[in-house]
Amino acid sequence: MSDTVKFLLPEREIPKSWYNIAADLPEPLPPVLHPGTKQPIGPDDLAVIFPRAVIEQEMSQEREIEIPTPVRDVYRQWRPSPLFRARRLEQALGTPAKIYYKYEGVSPAGSHKANSAIAQAFYNKQEGVRRIATETGAGQWGSSLALAGALFDIDIEVYMVKVSFQQKPYRRAMMETFGARCIASPSDTTESGRAVLAEHPDSTGSLGIAISEAVEVAAKNDDTCYALGSVLNHVLLHQSVIGLEAMKQMEMAGDYPDMVIGCTGGGSNFAGLAFPFLGEQLRSGRKVECIAVEPSACPTLTKGRLAYDYGDTAHLTPLVKMFTLGSAFVPPGFHAGGLRYHGMAPQVSHLTNLGLIDPRSYNQLECFAAGIQFAKAEGIVPAPEANHAIRAAIHEAEKCRESGEAKTILFNLSGHGHFDMQAYTDYLGGKLKDLVYDESEVAMALAGLPSVG
Amino acid sequence: MSDTVKFLLPEREIPKSWYNIAADLPEPLPPVLHPGTKQPIGPDDLAVIFPRAVIEQEMSQEREIEIPTPVRDVYRQWRPSPLFRARRLEQALGTPAKIYYKYEGVSPAGSHKANSAIAQAFYNKQEGVRRIATETGAGQWGSSLALAGALFDIDIEVYMVKVSFQQKPYRRAMMETFGARCIASPSDTTESGRAVLAEHPDSTGSLGIAISEAVEVAAKNDDTCYALGSVLNHVLLHQSVIGLEAMKQMEMAGDYPDMVIGCTGGGSNFAGLAFPFLGEQLRSGRKVECIAVEPSACPTLTKGRLAYDYGDTAHLTPLVKMFTLGSAFVPPGFHAGGLRYHGMAPQVSHLTNLGLIDPRSYNQLECFAAGIQFAKAEGIVPAPEANHAIRAAIHEAEKCRESGEAKTILFNLSGHGHFDMQAYTDYLGGKLKDLVYDESEVAMALAGLPSVG
Repeated sequence: MSDTVKFLLPEREIPKSWYNIAADLPEPLPPVLHPGTKQPIGPDDLAVIFPRAVIEQEMSQEREIEIPTPVRDVYRQWRPSPLFRARRLEQALGTPAKIYYKYEGVSPAGSHKANSAIAQAFYNKQEGVRRIATETGAGQWGSSLALAGALFDIDIEVYMVKVSFQQKPYRRAMMETFGARCIASPSDTTESGRAVLAEHPDSTGSLGIAISEAVEVAAKNDDTCYALGSVLNHVLLHQSVIGLEAMKQMEMAGDYPDMVIGCTGGGSNFAGLAFPFLGEQLRSGRKVECIAVEPSACPTLTKGRLAYDYGDTAHLTPLVKMFTLGSAFVPPGFHAGGLRYHGMAPQVSHLTNLGLIDPRSYNQLECFAAGIQFAKAEGIVPAPEANHAIRAAIHEAEKCRESGEAKTILFNLSGHGHFDMQAYTDYLGGKLKDLVYDESEVAMALAGLPSVG
Repeated sequence: MSDTVKFLLPEREIPKSWYNIAADLPEPLPPVLHPGTKQPIGPDDLAVIFPRAVIEQEMSQEREIEIPTPVRDVYRQWRPSPLFRARRLEQALGTPAKIYYKYEGVSPAGSHKANSAIAQAFYNKQEGVRRIATETGAGQWGSSLALAGALFDIDIEVYMVKVSFQQKPYRRAMMETFGARCIASPSDTTESGRAVLAEHPDSTGSLGIAISEAVEVAAKNDDTCYALGSVLNHVLLHQSVIGLEAMKQMEMAGDYPDMVIGCTGGGSNFAGLAFPFLGEQLRSGRKVECIAVEPSACPTLTKGRLAYDYGDTAHLTPLVKMFTLGSAFVPPGFHAGGLRYHGMAPQVSHLTNLGLIDPRSYNQLECFAAGIQFAKAEGIVPAPEANHAIRAAIHEAEKCRESGEAKTILFNLSGHGHFDMQAYTDYLGGKLKDLVYDESEVAMALAGLPSVG
């Protein structure tokens, strides 16, 4: 058995600034459009649902944005997160590749989501917001914002996709333990929810519907703002602490990644790890391959279209240009709930379109097999979402075994699987299948994309 | 909101030796007796079920016992574990007390149990053992040994108390993800299990029964040893890493505890934190109050009798002198499964009898209330077992608020509650009650204690 190889930074090495890739993009992002006028929006249009500081970050072109001291003070509970070399996994694979992983499951909510939840709660608190409405799918984001609400004394109201609400009662229990309110979506508490229920009384919900409900609550209540756990620029910005720390840790290891891998649902954990490395490439030319891994049953980057689309079902959000399967598309019920979203972060979409990110997809059975191989070697049970990154890392390491190349692979282990054990039970019991998305449903959803300009 | 105050040691500060309190006891422990002859046993009597190195540790009088390098190498994945000052909890309580906690939930299996599981798996592997049989109640120990088995390539067979097996399928899923086999106890795979089932076909099991099954498997199979997750001297020895690290961390904090608090089921997490401090007191006179907290529904130290008793139901284990409620006593089904044991570690019992440990008990409702108050302040959802330690720490901090004393309180947060969320759901839903044990059942169990000498 091999040694544990862990690279741990001292607390003072928690980044003092987030990294904003907007400053280094070879071409600027296409503008965000108003859902009604379809004209570019300004800060005022967003002020109904977001605090000013968050809107500034969303639109900022500054490369470095200071992390407020109270946010760093909370980060210190679990950051800097460890970076491990997966020596035991390398041995099990018999590969000459060097595999590293950054472990974000050490946050008290169990994933990287806390990095942005803490920041967003802070800015809301600073501007006197008393309540934040949000949505959650698998529950990682809802738990993280519930944690942040407890620490900053803000009421948190989470619209949780109904199927997850029913299948994952323990994520709900965690949110409620932190004092948050958790509502199954679609609900009868919002117009958007009631409209869905009128047409589909048995709707099991979707992220798109839950976003509509939370945005509606924020728009209609003066004391309430909205928070999103992925997709938007400011969320990706907050997640850059992952990659900034990882760059220092790779330096401690005396190594540099040939490739950086993350799973992608909305794009935030992937971007969090990859963008600081990609920024380095854009500025200095130091080459790194960035691999975005998505589920084959929700193949936004690999099978979707780059187009203006809504972030939600009721079309309350602004229009953003992104890879999308159409806001009307409801992904099938595979177990990586955090990856079940029709769209993709505009920045990730843009960079993929520019050829700077390589997307790929895997099916869920091979991802669970990879996750279990990882757990046996490294001792950590990963979240089903993270299993996608592991699958790709193992795939690359196996290619190295064939070619004899000793490539350096770095992936983001974005969270642990403690709240996803039903998925492991199903997999181990042979009850899990690979799911396929309905191609005609995607075709229809894409045909229904809004016409712009 | 207050800063996070975290005391983190560098990897090189992982202890190189465990601390053995046997060397500092003012009076030696009473001998362990053979269950048949009732005469003191020697190493050979234990060799049927334990590896030699473990037996040596069980009987050792050496103060320091070296931690093998491969064990420290695995420890490095999560050790040294952090020590936090609970500043936000102090503020919420409005207490002048300083509250510190050592957090053992950072281990990949989620609790302190991994500290001994890794060591025991190593010694078994070293002596060529191919399989380890063990029991588990709540599943913390079973998960930890499953993890250790995966890392050291040993087959693990876990007899899990049937009621927990049914109520906590996700702990089982975690064990199976690590490759272990998990069997509901009582089972038809052992004589002990079949005997119970013949008399009580609907038995939901107990730790005492599960121990009998695992010991029987180890005794009957040459390639199989047995491992226990608490109670015995060598397990408490392995857990001393907790207190040894905490002593260094309190030094970093420029502080020293007036009191050290841990929950007690078999005694290992309490002893792990408290014994190094207690040893310091025994050697140098530096006073520390050691508070052992047990559930009111299983009040071994506060209501039990100090007597020779068996560790299991079928009376396959040696007789040890300990506080006990009688091996025939089955504790009621409260939610801190790790504290549902009729006996107590002989070393903890002995020191309690000598007046060096202060035991006390709390009911489960007040413990859950304390756990939720802690979660909201500190951001970590604790295991129901650890809530007992938190309850006592808050109680002491509240006493300081009354008296105005700024005492220094240190407690062991032995694990997280990610696999115990049903208990939180029940508590938050108002479905949980305080349970009382059946006094006549305890009286009968105590009347049935073996007569010795």
